[in-house]
Order: sequence, then structure tokens, then C-alpha cells
Amino acid sequence: MTYAAPLCDMIFALEEIAGINEIAALPGYGEATPDVVQSILEEAGKFAAGILAPLNRIGDEQGSGLENGVVRTPEGFRDAYAKFVAGGWNSLQFDPAHGGQGLPWALAAMIQEMVTSACMSFSLCPLLTQGAVELLTSHGSVAQKQTYLRKLVSGEWSGTMNLTEPQAGSDVGALRTRAVREGERYRITGQKIFITYGEHDMAENIVHMVLARTPDAPPGVKGISLFIVPKFLVGAGGALGARNDLRCVAIEQKMGIHGSPTAVMAYGDSGGAIGELVGEENRGIEYMFTMMNSARLSVGIEGLAIAERAYQQARDYAKGRIQGRAADSASPVPIIRHPDVRRMLMTMRAQIEAMRAMVAFVAGAVDRSKRHPDAAERARHQAMVDLLTPVTKAWCTDTGCAVTSMAVQVHGGLGFIESTGAAQHFRDARIAPIYEGTNGIQAIDLVSRKVARDEGTGMRSLIDAMSRTVEAAKHGTDADRLTTPLSDAVAALSRATESLVATMTRDRAGTLAVATPYLALVGTVVGGWLLAKSALDARRRHAAADAGGYFAAREGIARFYAANLLPHAGALSRVVMDGGPSTMALAEDQF
Amino acid sequence: MTYAAPLCDMIFALEEIAGINEIAALPGYGEATPDVVQSILEEAGKFAAGILAPLNRIGDEQGSGLENGVVRTPEGFRDAYAKFVAGGWNSLQFDPAHGGQGLPWALAAMIQEMVTSACMSFSLCPLLTQGAVELLTSHGSVAQKQTYLRKLVSGEWSGTMNLTEPQAGSDVGALRTRAVREGERYRITGQKIFITYGEHDMAENIVHMVLARTPDAPPGVKGISLFIVPKFLVGAGGALGARNDLRCVAIEQKMGIHGSPTAVMAYGDSGGAIGELVGEENRGIEYMFTMMNSARLSVGIEGLAIAERAYQQARDYAKGRIQGRAADSASPVPIIRHPDVRRMLMTMRAQIEAMRAMVAFVAGAVDRSKRHPDAAERARHQAMVDLLTPVTKAWCTDTGCAVTSMAVQVHGGLGFIESTGAAQHFRDARIAPIYEGTNGIQAIDLVSRKVARDEGTGMRSLIDAMSRTVEAAKHGTDADRLTTPLSDAVAALSRATESLVATMTRDRAGTLAVATPYLALVGTVVGGWLLAKSALDARRRHAAADAGGYFAAREGIARFYAANLLPHAGALSRVVMDGGPSTMALAEDQF
Repeated sequence: MTYAAPLCDMIFALEEIAGINEIAALPGYGEATPDVVQSILEEAGKFAAGILAPLNRIGDEQGSGLENGVVRTPEGFRDAYAKFVAGGWNSLQFDPAHGGQGLPWALAAMIQEMVTSACMSFSLCPLLTQGAVELLTSHGSVAQKQTYLRKLVSGEWSGTMNLTEPQAGSDVGALRTRAVREGERYRITGQKIFITYGEHDMAENIVHMVLARTPDAPPGVKGISLFIVPKFLVGAGGALGARNDLRCVAIEQKMGIHGSPTAVMAYGDSGGAIGELVGEENRGIEYMFTMMNSARLSVGIEGLAIAERAYQQARDYAKGRIQGRAADSASPVPIIRHPDVRRMLMTMRAQIEAMRAMVAFVAGAVDRSKRHPDAAERARHQAMVDLLTPVTKAWCTDTGCAVTSMAVQVHGGLGFIESTGAAQHFRDARIAPIYEGTNGIQAIDLVSRKVARDEGTGMRSLIDAMSRTVEAAKHGTDADRLTTPLSDAVAALSRATESLVATMTRDRAGTLAVATPYLALVGTVVGGWLLAKSALDARRRHAAADAGGYFAAREGIARFYAANLLPHAGALSRVVMDGGPSTMALAEDQF
Repeated sequence: MTYAAPLCDMIFALEEIAGINEIAALPGYGEATPDVVQSILEEAGKFAAGILAPLNRIGDEQGSGLENGVVRTPEGFRDAYAKFVAGGWNSLQFDPAHGGQGLPWALAAMIQEMVTSACMSFSLCPLLTQGAVELLTSHGSVAQKQTYLRKLVSGEWSGTMNLTEPQAGSDVGALRTRAVREGERYRITGQKIFITYGEHDMAENIVHMVLARTPDAPPGVKGISLFIVPKFLVGAGGALGARNDLRCVAIEQKMGIHGSPTAVMAYGDSGGAIGELVGEENRGIEYMFTMMNSARLSVGIEGLAIAERAYQQARDYAKGRIQGRAADSASPVPIIRHPDVRRMLMTMRAQIEAMRAMVAFVAGAVDRSKRHPDAAERARHQAMVDLLTPVTKAWCTDTGCAVTSMAVQVHGGLGFIESTGAAQHFRDARIAPIYEGTNGIQAIDLVSRKVARDEGTGMRSLIDAMSRTVEAAKHGTDADRLTTPLSDAVAALSRATESLVATMTRDRAGTLAVATPYLALVGTVVGGWLLAKSALDARRRHAAADAGGYFAAREGIARFYAANLLPHAGALSRVVMDGGPSTMALAEDQF
């Protein structure tokens, strides 16, 4: 159950896919030289493996517990968090103006993967803080930034996101928490559920970002405002003051991520919690959306990270477990030699590398969208981030679940026994397709906002980029096994996209009914494209110096993906084109 | 979290797919008249819903526990088991010569589904007893039958299967438990793991069927013998005698089926447990195989059953949960009206009906293989059972996992909270692809023993039957949406089968590497075929009297399956044809 950060694969993803050297040439990213990137990855790898990974099992077994309003995190979490903060791991990608290190998001994404692989339930605390930092950086007043940002960036304080209420889940517009103005501040009253790290013992203060409704607000999402509601009020000079009127009333008993306290939060039981308005009233949803992309990308990274952890364990087991004979051996062999086990490991490996490629590609686009000197380029990269963020969130988390399930299977009966650890990954991974917008919501976002709204223009330009890879590869040697399936898959995506754009106005329900297969199609094809492209590029660049056959292996993995996973693109494309109408065939009472 | 047996769907599967009326005409099955079948289903449904279903959550929360060698099952299990035995539910399909009711397996399969849906962890006790009954019925001596069978058939005693040891999992030939002859009996010494209901408090006696090796036995599977090793020795006239030298030394902490005690069993710590040889020495594996088909079919039923239970809960939630607006409504609607949720429910529904159709088809073939008056017909049906048993086991259990996962997803955040109950189904279902031969073992069995060994002859005759359905349907009205995808899928299966048969001798490893996608292909196509065939047959027969649109709904479901699930057959077929070689592309040290 150990973990080792996959440094080579991360450097490959950063160099060949994110284009970290190009990113380092952007204004403000000059520090991200190859040496610095390498040494940060190495140090982070040591921290993740040495400090965080040992907490994973403890976190699962002990869970976080609530006693008299106080949440106690599992043994070791508090100490590890202190080291996490002291080591500067919370602040990598944030603005130096607020104490951040101003490093590229692409690099931070790899560190986030490591932290999450090592201990997913721990990783959620900094993840939520990241959301608060982004919100305040974009929309906080000067005073709010001064009061809150430095401590949130360092991680001395943590942040939370308070959206959900019992009657307001995917439909956040249905929320009822009230905010009543009282001079410069507001009194907040209401109950929020599913608040990750809503209460805990790792940080001095917890800065809750709370969506609420003022008395005269219009109904629905247009009447929601965003408030800063700190656990302890903050005085002049940043001193912690009185306890605010908010408390954790329950911790959920969940299937996984037991170490992460999922709180039911009560605001204002004794007259109203004190909150500060962020920006203007009724614009809370708009502000929330500014951090949505990165939060969703981060949840996509969770799918990748838990898959990597599960894979490493399954691989080690498959190399060590002696069982049965192979065709070419008289004595028992490690099960990695059995073709069906090898197929599982190759599938896991190919899917992991495709996920990491997608994460690196999108995170690299985030960096360009923030720092490219040319406004048109920034806009172009932002459009790519917008297009692929729902895909990264949903495809990587669904794939993460599939990989953790395969890892259980590789262990046979032991996979079902909790002490083995494989089951924990399977349970932990299952939350990621649900939170931060269910994967169904991601698919609807992709289809309606990202593809149909511009009538397929953005997706077509991505398809063009993929077609260029196919064209270029055709002139390589022995590339058929890669390019034919990729070419077929890109064509299938193109057909499905045109069909979708055409049906969306005519049959909205029937089109949304195939949103999920469409998203799976995009994920499958983009993953295969990035694997093929990076493998072919790498071969060109490194053919002369491929120590240990590392780059040849990348091509082997891309070929496996092309032959074993890309064919599903054709099927998904058919489903997108034909599957919608029959979805609505039964009446409700026939279910 | 309630459960209602899906009586209509079961009767449909029995009548339209198993052909229960034809089965009732076979010698010995005369009692299975439509009225009797209907009333048994109804009574079983009441028992499952009223007595067993309420135990499911308790079983998960309490689990079975071990104290001083005594296993205590969860509250209510003992009483429910007594009622199960008293109601005759253990003995439906067994031979009247030993106290059974001699009813068709097809009917028993539906009852098994109900019991498992209601409480999977409870259902495993009778499931294991069934294995012991079959073994003794086929291979026990007259005296052994007299001593053990009647009590096992009634369920007053339960049975277990003891195969696995720490070093002998999928490779059962590696087992080391020793059996030393001592007069008429044997002394058994060794440790067995993963013994379902190896110790418990629900039955008076537990009859362990134990695989062990005599001192002079040849190595591997050819040196394994089968022994009856009862917990309490049985004296003349069936009186319980001394405690045998065996004990439960541990209960596994598992991800799911907590109510079912998975025991580590120690035999012979005090000199050797007393065992009786079944049949002849060194033929234990051969005997085990005689009950393998029905055990695997039963595990396939588990996939179906847990999917049905999870579906019912998700459907009820989707009808009751008000969230978001539909395109055609101004006020919030139940989420079942959202296309993406509807897609999930339709997918679950279609997969469940396809699984039930497959179970009914195979169970019907079991009945014909046992009771058909014509030996050639018996052999033909036995060949179909042999061919489709690994498919039913693996495809239904993998699909069961997929359906329980979708049921979690329908619940959104609540799906991850344990008290909702959806998570339990997801955790419980995950064992079924592992035990009774992992799904990888099933795929290898299918490819090497069931398809390649007869060079595809058996599979081709199944393909011919499917092609005849396509031909017949072509002449129906408006059948295109059903027949075109089915026709494509059958052709894809045919191509994959021919490819497999051709490559098996040339590249065994590469062929076994695609065994799992091949099995998925067979399952997908057979499921779609049975749905389409039964829907078309039913329309023909019942068009004039389709109250409530029940038969029209069957066709709607078959069409959904054809448009949304059958297209994957083409992809799987491609993978079978092209995917093998790249699976072995990396060296072991590159993982």
C-alpha cells in the first residue's frame, strides 16, 4: 500500500503535452525552469509518499468524528497539514502579491495529483481552500483580500464552499439560506449540507464562502449572493476575534473519503452569523462560476490520482502473487504474466496516461489563458479550457472509478477484504463523479453551453487539431496501428458533433439524453489523441536517446489504447446519433 | 429502501423466454402449471419483501461477528432463516427423492433472484447449501445421501464449499490441505479461506465439502479429493454427535455483504477433522465441476438481483426528488423527467431485463437438459448451458456492478451517504465478479473450453438462432430500429468468433488477452437478442390484449437497448480482432 509519485510520467506529461518549457517563457512564469520543475516534483513526491501516503489507511479506518461541535480529524492529519503548510505546498500556483509562489497551474496540477494519490481525504482541505482563494482574488474587495488572502494562500486558514441545502442540490437556485443586511455586514441564517471540511482541527480559522439570499432578492439563481463567513471573526491586523454564530451539527457517514469531514453546517442559530458580502448582491452565482473551472479540473485530477494509486497497488500485487502457469512455463508464475491480468494492467495504465495527458493539456491551456501576452491567444486557450473542463471532470472521474474497480479485480478475493486497501480506493473514487456538479451536469454543460451554443465551432477546431495529428502521423513509419483507429475515432466524433448540433434545437430532450455518451466519446477520443500525439512527437525527438525504452513504451501504450479503447468511439458516436428518442419511450408510470 | 418482487417481469421472462409452459410438459415438471407458478412467485415475493428485505440494512450495519469461535449473524437472520426453511423455500428445485419439491430450475432462479434482491448476504447461505446438495446428489454414496441430503435439502443443515487456501485461489490445484486415511474415514488437516457461511448460528449443522490431498496424490488438480466434513458428526439415524475438529478462526472484514460470514477455517488443529471421501480419491475437481454450472448461474443471478434492488430504489428516489426544471415546465419537477436521469433509469431497466432474459434462457435450458425425453435434445440444451454459463456469471455480475453504480449516481450526493442504502448495493455487488471463478476465469473458460475447443461450432449455432430472429423480424412492421442494430451486432459477434477461433492456436496469449472483451460482446448481443425476440414474440401474441401497454413497453425497452447498448458490440468485436497483440507490448519491468 505504498505510493511512489510517477515522476517520469509527470515530466513527460508536462514537457510533451502541457508544453512546460513554452509556459515557462510566458510573462511571470520564468521561474519554472526545467531544473526547478524537476526539483519541485521530486520534493513533492517525497512529501506525498513519506508524509501523506501513510495517512490514507488510518484516515479510512478512523474517519473524522464530531464531538460537542468539534471535529477531530484522523491521527496524523493535523501534523501532516502543518508540514504541508510549512513546506509551502498550499501556495504553489497562487499570486505572489498574496504570498503565493506564482508557479504554473500545469505544475500545480501534478502536485495536486500526488497529494490526492497519497491521501485523497486529506487533499480535499487544500482543494476547498483553493476555491476560496480564487473567489477572493477575483471578486474580493481590497480590504477582504488583505484580511483573508495571505492566510488562505499559506494554508494557515482553510476555506470552504457552502452551496448545497437539502432541497437545493444540482438546482442551487432553490437555496433558502437568508442574509439580512445589518450596517456594513450581514446576518446569515440557514442550514448547509455536504460541506467538505466545514469543521476540522487542522487550521486556525475556517473561511466559509456561503451562498445566501437577501430578503428582497429575485427568485432562482439571479437572487443569490456570496458571503464570507469566517469561523472566528477577524479583527484589525488579522487577529482572531470572537467565534461566529455557526457550527457543525453533524458529520455524514459516507461510503468513502472517511478522513474528510463532510459537515452539516448551521448558520445563525443564535441570532445570525456575521458575514461580509463579496462584490455585489445577487451576483453570487456568477462569482462561483469563476472558480468552477479550476475546481472541476481539480476533481478530474482526483479521478486520475486515485486511479494511479490503485494501479500501483494492483501492479505490485500482480508482480508478487504467484498463481497458475503461463503457456510457456512449467512452474507457477506471477499473475502479471497471465494475459487477462496483463490486459487489466495495460488498460489501467493506458487510461491513467490518457487522463494525465488530458489534465496536463487543460492545465497548460489554463496557464496560457492567464499569461499569454496576446489577448486573442488568451481567449483561444480560455475557450479550450471551457470546452474541456467538463470532459476532464466527468471522463477522468468515471474512468477513475473504472480503474479502481479493475484494481480490485486484479487482487481477486483479497480485493474485497478491507485490509488489502484496494477496496478503499474503489470506495473513495466513487464520490468524484458526484460532487462539484454531477457528471450528468457536466455532460449537459458540455452539450448545451460548450458545443451547441457556438453551433459546434469550438469543438470543430479541436477536431481539426486532431485531424492534423492524424495527417502528420500518416507519413511516419509503421504508424497504421495508431493512425487508423485514431482517424476512425476522430471521424466518429465529428459525425456525432454535427448530429448533436443539428438536433439540439429540434429535440432538446432527446439531445440531452445522449449528453453523457457524447461526453464519454469526447473524453475517449481526446485521450487517445493526446497519447498518440505525444508518443509520436516523443519518438521524433528522442529516438536517438531512448534509455530504458521509455519513449518506445509510450508508443506501445498509445497503440494499446488505439486498439482496445478507441474502437468504443464508433459505438458512442452511434449512440449519440440514434440513442436519444428511445430514452423517453416509457411513460413515468412504466418505470 | 423497500423491495417489491417484479412479478410481471418474472412471469414474462418465464413464459416468453424460459418457455415455462413447455418445461411444465417435460416429465416430472407437471406440477409447474401456470397457476402454481404464479402463486409460488407471489408467495415468494411476499416472503422476500416482508421477511428478508428489512434485514438487508441491519445485516450491513451489524455484520456477522466472531467471538470464541462462535459466529453470530446479524439480528433477525436466524429467525428469518427458520422461516425460510419452514416455508420450504430451500427445497424448490431439488429431487423429491430427497425431500425436494422437484420444481423447474427456471422457477427456482426467479425465487433466487427475489431472495438475493431482498438480502444478498442472507441468500448466500442457501446458495452454498445448493452446491452441497448437488454434489451429494450426483456423487455421494447411498449412505451419504441418506445421512446428509434430506437435512440439506430442507435447509435444517447448511452446506459450504472449501476450495481456496492462501496460496491456492484461481489455481485450486495448488492447495495443500491434507487428508490421511484412517479406516473408513479420513483425517483432514489444513486451513481454508474465503469460506462463505463457514460458521454461523442459523442451522443445526454445517456440512463442509472440503477439497484436500491424500499423501500419495499426484500433484496439481489431478491429486485432489473431495470430502464431507460436518461440523457435528452424524450418528445413526441422523442424530448429531461429537463436535468435529474444525473451527472458524477468523471472519473477514469485507467491503460488502457484511451479513454473510466469510470464514477462515482451521481443520485438524487437534489431530485431524473426520471426513468422508466422496466418490473416489483424486476425482474431487471433476465432482466440483458438476455443481459449477449451477453455482455460476446463481452468481449471475446475484448480479441481476442486486441490480433490480438498486434500480427500484433509484427509481423511487427519481420519482420523489423534486429538483430543477424540465424544458416544458415552469416549476420544479421530479428528476425522473430530466433526460439524463431518464437515460440512467432506462439503461438500468434495459440491462436488468436483458440479464433476467439471459438467466431465464439458461435456466430453461438447464431444465431441458435434465428432463427432456430425447437424449439429443438433452445434450443440445446441456451444450447451451455450458456455453452460456460463464457469460451469465460474468456479464450479469459486471452489469450488476454498473447498474448499482448508476443507482448511486441517480441519488447524487445522497448516494454516497451510507444511510441512503444505495452505497450498500454498490459495495455488495462488487464481490460477484470475483467469487465462484473471477470474471477473467469465466472469459478464459468461454474462449478456450466453450468456443475454441469445438472450433466455434456451438457458438455458430447460437449465432444462427439469432440470425433467424433477425430474418423473422425483418418481415414485421416498423421493426428496423430493432433489427438493424441487432443484425449488425450479430454480424459483429460472428466476425469476432471466427477471428478468435483462427487465432487461438496461432497466438494463445494474444487470444486470451481479448477473452474478456469477447465475453462482454457475447453478453451484450445475447441480451439484446433475447430482449428483441421476446418483445417481438409478445407483440405477435398479445397485440390484441395489451392492458397498460405492458407488451408495448417491452418493445420500447428492446429498442432502447438496440440503440444505446447494442452499438458497443461493434466496438467489442474490433477489440477482439485487433486488441490482443498490443496487450503484451510492454515488458514486465515497464509497468
